[in-house]
Order: sequence, then structure tokens, then C-alpha cells
Amino acid sequence: MTEALNAVLIGKKPIMNYVLAVITFFHGGAKDVSIKARGRSISRAIDVAEVVRHRFLPDAKIKAIKIGTDQFLPIDAEEGSQGGTNVSTIEIVLTR
Amino acid sequence: MTEALNAVLIGKKPIMNYVLAVITFFHGGAKDVSIKARGRSISRAIDVAEVVRHRFLPDAKIKAIKIGTDQFLPIDAEEGSQGGTNVSTIEIVLTR
Repeated sequence: MTEALNAVLIGKKPIMNYVLAVITFFHGGAKDVSIKARGRSISRAIDVAEVVRHRFLPDAKIKAIKIGTDQFLPIDAEEGSQGGTNVSTIEIVLTR
Repeated sequence: MTEALNAVLIGKKPIMNYVLAVITFFHGGAKDVSIKARGRSISRAIDVAEVVRHRFLPDAKIKAIKIGTDQFLPIDAEEGSQGGTNVSTIEIVLTR
């Protein structure tokens, strides 16, 4: 398996930081770059993908968009208990 | 064209209101239901899709996820000026 893992995890920094990270991966020769986010950062992940596509790399295309749920269990949770918190996730894969 | 437009637009109400709206469309015979959101509501759109799929309708599948950008121009904007605001959008199409 020679596939490199080019992933940018979206947090609370300014959008342009993440845009730059994605562009850097592509300029480094990456074919696919994955933009990942959880919870409230999800809308920012889409902002990043849209800015990359429209302003910097018009030849970049959306290869896949996946959504999912991450479950957090409290440390003292029993097996099968309902005490966990669910948070939605997104992964946007851009390709050139 | 007999295709009905079954769309739920996500706003600031509790998640369960939108979950119920989606389920109501499906129970009314809809084959596809579209969940749409803009800006900060985007993460809630994913929450709604995930709750519908995991808690209520396990046979519902994600047919498509589209992302995009809506542009708002101020009323006095000139043609081609940079005064507009961009907001990201998402559309999640669930199917049964």
C-alpha cells in the first residue's frame, strides 16, 4: 500500500490556514486530499473545500463526501449504556 | 414531470423537529427526501440525516450529498464588485 494519507482536520483556526494546508498537499504532489471535521466545524470544512475549488484550484473536483457519527462514551460508562454523546462527522475528498 | 419536491430546510429549531419532518415525508410515500442547510446550520443537517438513518429508518440510504456556495450581494453592489458574502450550502438526499 503506497497510498499516502493526506488529511486536513478542521478546527477553530481561520479558514485560510486550512485552505493553505490543502493547497500545500496538492502542490506536494498529492492526488487526493481529505478534509475532515466534526460537529460545529463541519460547515467550516465545506467553506474550506469551496474556497479551494473556486478561488485557488479550479481543476480540483469533489471525489467523495462521506458523513457519519462518532460516539463518545464517558469514562465510567457501562457496556451498552445510553450515556454517550454522538457527534456528526464529515469527510470531503478533493482530487485533481 | 411528476416528481414531488420533498425538501426539509434546516434552521434553528430543535433537531427532532426536522427529523420528524423527514420521517413524515417518507411515511407520506416519498421515495427521496432532501435535507438542505446553509452556513452554521450545515452540521445540524448532518445530525438530522444521521438520527433519521440510525434511530428511525435503518433502511434509509444516502443517495447524494452536494455542497455549494450561495452568494449574497449587498443591495447597492456594482456588477463584478467584491462586496458580496459567500455562504456554504449542503444538500443531503435520503432515499428508501
